[in-house]
Amino acid sequence: MSGLGGVETALEQRRGPINRTLMEAVPVAKPERLHGAARHLLDAGGKRLRPALVLLSAETLAALDPQESTNYHEFPAVDGGAVDVLTAAASVELVQTFTLVHDDLMDNDDVRRGSPAVHQQYDDSMAILAGDVLHARAFELLLRTNAPPERSMRALTRLARTCTEICEGQTADIGFEDRDHVTVEEYTDMIDRKTASLFATSAALPAILLGHDDAVDALASYGREIGRAFQIHDDLLDLTTPTETLGKQRGSDLLEGKRTLVSVHARQQGVDIDSLLDGETAASVSDDTVDDAVEVLAEAGSLEFARDRAREFVEHGKKELEPLPSSESRRLLLDVADYLVERRY
Amino acid sequence: MSGLGGVETALEQRRGPINRTLMEAVPVAKPERLHGAARHLLDAGGKRLRPALVLLSAETLAALDPQESTNYHEFPAVDGGAVDVLTAAASVELVQTFTLVHDDLMDNDDVRRGSPAVHQQYDDSMAILAGDVLHARAFELLLRTNAPPERSMRALTRLARTCTEICEGQTADIGFEDRDHVTVEEYTDMIDRKTASLFATSAALPAILLGHDDAVDALASYGREIGRAFQIHDDLLDLTTPTETLGKQRGSDLLEGKRTLVSVHARQQGVDIDSLLDGETAASVSDDTVDDAVEVLAEAGSLEFARDRAREFVEHGKKELEPLPSSESRRLLLDVADYLVERRY
Repeated sequence: MSGLGGVETALEQRRGPINRTLMEAVPVAKPERLHGAARHLLDAGGKRLRPALVLLSAETLAALDPQESTNYHEFPAVDGGAVDVLTAAASVELVQTFTLVHDDLMDNDDVRRGSPAVHQQYDDSMAILAGDVLHARAFELLLRTNAPPERSMRALTRLARTCTEICEGQTADIGFEDRDHVTVEEYTDMIDRKTASLFATSAALPAILLGHDDAVDALASYGREIGRAFQIHDDLLDLTTPTETLGKQRGSDLLEGKRTLVSVHARQQGVDIDSLLDGETAASVSDDTVDDAVEVLAEAGSLEFARDRAREFVEHGKKELEPLPSSESRRLLLDVADYLVERRY
Repeated sequence: MSGLGGVETALEQRRGPINRTLMEAVPVAKPERLHGAARHLLDAGGKRLRPALVLLSAETLAALDPQESTNYHEFPAVDGGAVDVLTAAASVELVQTFTLVHDDLMDNDDVRRGSPAVHQQYDDSMAILAGDVLHARAFELLLRTNAPPERSMRALTRLARTCTEICEGQTADIGFEDRDHVTVEEYTDMIDRKTASLFATSAALPAILLGHDDAVDALASYGREIGRAFQIHDDLLDLTTPTETLGKQRGSDLLEGKRTLVSVHARQQGVDIDSLLDGETAASVSDDTVDDAVEVLAEAGSLEFARDRAREFVEHGKKELEPLPSSESRRLLLDVADYLVERRY
């Protein structure tokens, strides 16, 4: 199978082992209130894109046929050793989850993955502490892959720097809300840190841990490019995907004054972005009102501009994979890049 | 010099290199708002007890004469290698600082070290993000000591588990505020996690990094015991040290309903703790009112009970050092234990 359906099947197949590893990595120990809060968002599900990228990247490095049943806990390294890439994958998802828990609190986003956010289900303190526990656990996990210590250290240093970058991106994102004028370059730098850095690290970690040193940069660049595309497409979905499918109010970025590539472009075209949904809230806004706003953005060419940029990043990302050996797995990584900008949710 | 004055001099001597290392470890990079917030509490000063413990523990392992000028960046390891124990010390202080930044936000404590807390000086979001950056940086630093990779990994795993324990302790501490009855055992378990675990790790890290494997447990136990004593004494100081010296309102634990060994004991003696400063706030309470409350606690024998327990923990801690070679440095570690329960602030 190839194309979108093939990617969805591949993600689905990997989600089972990823979820089992996550549940083992974050057991509901005592105090239950804290560890329950840490588990809350993990239990709510999610696509597990970033950990799947870890597994697919490892498979591409091994030039594996993805139809084979793969033991991700003992994945073949360059030197003949075996590395637990599934535990590395779980580590990446814990970082993603910790940042979501803290971001939802900062952004006052009360619903995530169709469930109440941690600060809603528990309280603000538990959201801070649950995020901190997930953060610490991510680092603890990444040292448990059985990779040689030097490689584990390189991987962990990369992951720690990525955490700092994500915080820098979130700071920029918050700062944009108070600014009238944000350039495309500033927006791209923001999503590079907030989103693309973890995609880059997810794709590069297996190369570091398995000893494929010459593939680290290519996979990191692939991850960074498709991470940019993912974020831009995510912002487009916020405008076009029905609220029920989205798991949160459609048009929420416009309502909250969040800058996206669409709104940055529209403003440059003279659209008065802040007045589009002025006075509306997630509780009050109607579907027709959001439709009207989206229509204005479409007429300004902003949706098309964003779609074209996302598509460009995807093509850049796919190009980065050319030096890697051709295999079914590499085909999947290429299809994943397309999937990120074609998915409906 | 020996005794309290000797400890203060020893701490003062080590504070310079510790502070320089911290400032280098957390440079004010861009975005300045984030990294400035991360630096805020570090810049406000502090006793640097935990990082000093790292250095003193290393010196004790080397049985060094502390009068020598010591190159902490290249400290002699068991195998003849050199380890940067000053960077390990900075890592521990970053963990302490990250937890303070997040705790102050959770506890609504607006003043810390005589300065506005990070969430006051900046805002809640910046306090969350600054804490996250310090957390990530602590892990990044601990891999930069030049210790052999296996030892660095052991040290980092220990530090990550300590971070989780601190969150567990803070969860218990918050939970106590809603409970009438807390036992001495529950209180001790709470401070074991919230406070003593980082003291234990601070004392044990040099043994791990320098290869003194047989000293890890003794130093960790020493650190844990004196960490308990430190916390109990800290709670006593909250009742007895003038507000100006304390850097926050005297009696704040009573005002906020925080459980301490003093209040746990007093309640067991039938004192109606919650009515002592009922209706008062940090803004309204007078020194005389706090004095009256402290007098009630003293009459119930609760101050003495807490002082005796702290002293017991100190003696237990000192006993743990017996297996280590006798030296001026070990003498200092013994004096530090006494200092923790004799200091005035």
